[in-house]
Amino acid sequence: MKPLYIQVREQDNVAIVVNDGGLPAGTEFECGLTLLETVPQGHKAALRNIGKGEPVVRYGAVIGHAAARIERGAWVREDLLELPDPPALDSLPIATSIPEALPPLEGYTFEGYRNSDGTAGTRNILGITTTVQCVAPTVDLAVRRIRKEILPRFKGVDDVIAITHAYGCGVAISAPGAEVPIRTVRNLALNPNLGGEPLVVSLGCEKLQPSRLSLPVVSDEPFVVRLQDEEYRGFGDMVAAIMRLAEKRLERLDARPRVTCPASDLVVGLQCGGSDAFSGVTANPAVGYASDLLVRSGATVIFSEVTEVRDAVHLLSARAADEGVGRALAREMQWYDDYLRRGGADRSANPTPGNKRGGLSNIVEKALGSVAKAGSTALRAVVAPGERVSQKGLVFLATPASDFVCGTLQLAAGMNMHVFTTGEGTPYGLAMAPVIKVSSRSQLAARWPDLIDLDAGRIARGESSIEETGWELFRLILEVASGRKRAWAEQWALHNSMALFNPAPVT
Amino acid sequence: MKPLYIQVREQDNVAIVVNDGGLPAGTEFECGLTLLETVPQGHKAALRNIGKGEPVVRYGAVIGHAAARIERGAWVREDLLELPDPPALDSLPIATSIPEALPPLEGYTFEGYRNSDGTAGTRNILGITTTVQCVAPTVDLAVRRIRKEILPRFKGVDDVIAITHAYGCGVAISAPGAEVPIRTVRNLALNPNLGGEPLVVSLGCEKLQPSRLSLPVVSDEPFVVRLQDEEYRGFGDMVAAIMRLAEKRLERLDARPRVTCPASDLVVGLQCGGSDAFSGVTANPAVGYASDLLVRSGATVIFSEVTEVRDAVHLLSARAADEGVGRALAREMQWYDDYLRRGGADRSANPTPGNKRGGLSNIVEKALGSVAKAGSTALRAVVAPGERVSQKGLVFLATPASDFVCGTLQLAAGMNMHVFTTGEGTPYGLAMAPVIKVSSRSQLAARWPDLIDLDAGRIARGESSIEETGWELFRLILEVASGRKRAWAEQWALHNSMALFNPAPVT
Repeated sequence: MKPLYIQVREQDNVAIVVNDGGLPAGTEFECGLTLLETVPQGHKAALRNIGKGEPVVRYGAVIGHAAARIERGAWVREDLLELPDPPALDSLPIATSIPEALPPLEGYTFEGYRNSDGTAGTRNILGITTTVQCVAPTVDLAVRRIRKEILPRFKGVDDVIAITHAYGCGVAISAPGAEVPIRTVRNLALNPNLGGEPLVVSLGCEKLQPSRLSLPVVSDEPFVVRLQDEEYRGFGDMVAAIMRLAEKRLERLDARPRVTCPASDLVVGLQCGGSDAFSGVTANPAVGYASDLLVRSGATVIFSEVTEVRDAVHLLSARAADEGVGRALAREMQWYDDYLRRGGADRSANPTPGNKRGGLSNIVEKALGSVAKAGSTALRAVVAPGERVSQKGLVFLATPASDFVCGTLQLAAGMNMHVFTTGEGTPYGLAMAPVIKVSSRSQLAARWPDLIDLDAGRIARGESSIEETGWELFRLILEVASGRKRAWAEQWALHNSMALFNPAPVT
Repeated sequence: MKPLYIQVREQDNVAIVVNDGGLPAGTEFECGLTLLETVPQGHKAALRNIGKGEPVVRYGAVIGHAAARIERGAWVREDLLELPDPPALDSLPIATSIPEALPPLEGYTFEGYRNSDGTAGTRNILGITTTVQCVAPTVDLAVRRIRKEILPRFKGVDDVIAITHAYGCGVAISAPGAEVPIRTVRNLALNPNLGGEPLVVSLGCEKLQPSRLSLPVVSDEPFVVRLQDEEYRGFGDMVAAIMRLAEKRLERLDARPRVTCPASDLVVGLQCGGSDAFSGVTANPAVGYASDLLVRSGATVIFSEVTEVRDAVHLLSARAADEGVGRALAREMQWYDDYLRRGGADRSANPTPGNKRGGLSNIVEKALGSVAKAGSTALRAVVAPGERVSQKGLVFLATPASDFVCGTLQLAAGMNMHVFTTGEGTPYGLAMAPVIKVSSRSQLAARWPDLIDLDAGRIARGESSIEETGWELFRLILEVASGRKRAWAEQWALHNSMALFNPAPVT
């Protein structure tokens, strides 16, 4: 392959090297640029001389200032960039450039499960909620037995899962922030893929009493098994009680056929993990295009990860559909700034060693690439962590960037399909919703053929366009949502445990 | 059964009702005391008139001041008690009443596994450490396959376990407090029950790089599987690599016979969970007696739970073996006071609803009962959370009180046997060490015959003494440590997941 680089915008003074293994010093590109030193794949080369203190520009935005003079053709390493200040939250442009609505897309559907609350599931799963970690091994054991002894009789049900977590007791349950994990546990139980009938296992003496979850009562049947209740004579009895209630629910879940649902019933959560410099030019823009297609179909698209949005927040606030949405965005960013400061941390805690190895010098560059997932439509709503999303269109859910914490909160928000872009690769998966993996580089897709569902790396080599890959992903989402295809993470049953976001102390 | 109450000390002006179901108004005790109202089991009745503002005394200590006048024979409910101030940390009595050493106990042994670092295991388990939650489902799958396909060939090995957790990435890894979860992951890998040969699965791009764990290199074999490495062509390859390395270790573990070890090789972690008013007069004092027997045998006894010790810390600091230990105790308490304040919480976050239902009015009463587990010997050391314990004798490990967080930290400290007292009952268990459950009430032992290993409730009815039950527990510990007996939690394979204590923010 001939030497290639990707310059995202005209005004950029750096570009990333495309070729596998990077390019050696002396490499000459078609445009005449010659590398002064070896530049690893995905890393940046200077397109022009950049004086000390001058802005380094990628995605048309300043990703830092030169810590020393950088010659044309030099490798723009992490230590040559000084981190710019984050956008001030009290002077963000709000709703100043609301994108015009794109033409609606009609007629796209998937085969899903209709729930009584109006939502639709892409899977038909029995979820067993737990109020406290003390009961987790008991529920795990019951679930293993249900899968083996009962589930085989109910072919229409995809799975039985224990929604276990490390919350529920030994926590400051009234401290500021404790509402986050509590509503997360509640809303996980109401995920559309769980059919809308919560089943709860409680210990009895825990702080997070089942009543605090305020779950809706949907039938006359008891839906809480409280292990300390007098009626259970020992462990065998407890397990039997869980199995008995589970079986009744399985009967009802099994009786539900897949029905044709409009694409607007999709609630697609977007995430990136193990990002590299390609993520922002291949996988994320392709997901952004698919995002726009989903929004045009009337669906909900959730993107998240506060620390990866913070440095590009001015781009998003300008796209807010109205003043209220913009203010909510600023408020969530402020909450997180305060949370990090209180803990003695700041945004430099991101990116990871892998991000840096992949060419992402700092959080500004990472944020600019990350935001590409959000496509180009107006930002319709901003939702606090643990809350449920009710709006259609593009929604920002204010979560940590941690893959598993974010995934947990997106499930609580009501996500019924998950799209995950990755540069370095991760065998992440969720029990409650299918996860489609999109790779930013073709090497990863080639190396992990049994984990990557879609290769966006072809975009870097001009073998596919952002639009084509975006359409491909959109169609794949409908196929997987309908259960006609299984994503790799689902085939291997890769289930990351729920990781609750608890900003309050443990006790 | 005739009406019974338990008064712990002569100077107490309240006593708890022993009888099942409590006692009705009008009940007359042998001493002449008559109940003015119904008092539930485990709850307190006033032995004398107590004027408004006067101290309410139990365990010979002030558990609160009367919020209103309390008549002799009245039920001393939670709302009648005003919480006293916690002992000031800058004026604690330090090493003022160091208990004299009890006569050594010779000749007690157990059959264990000798490790090259000098420690001994009570079980022979292969543990697979993970650096980040991203790899957890992959390791879980590998472990399921190892258990099924490889482990049956190695009869001398008890189990293969994945040490998974929600840490490793998406965390402020350099913020104050981040050292706690990092050293916990490290020290869990070195638990004596894991044979001393760590095996680590890493993703590659995570923040918690394997090198940060500074694990000792014990052989020439590679001991880290890094899933993003070029050599793994897909998911099947990754799982195969984990299984290959696991098999080699299983061979070596399998070749180790049980050998006779002195009781001084035991590292017994003590915990209480779902405590009630009986915990402090039956189960905890019996455990305290066993604790003394262990200390007299040269073993290490770890007790923990900062928030349940805070209000009785003056009793412990006085027992500190020297000034340094006492100061360390005050320092850990101060750290936790600050941590709670920073999070907008305080010690009133404890006790739980179940504790209160069980008769424990507030954290002072709970603390006084909790400390009884520590027996009567001198406090030899105070260890920070996540650190390993190297001292013999009675050691305080400064952990949160949360059962699963405390259990995780006690395992990281090197615990090879666990004793858990409970009043309300919990089906808690650990994969890495046997858990012996001691009930504070006989009703619980009767209702949960397949979960409770020892009934200390007999003490309340005079059917056994604290000393007798203490000896019984001591002998049971040696039996279970030797693998001749399995505790119930082990028989059911009840394995609570590791819950790391991370005082720093997530990102």
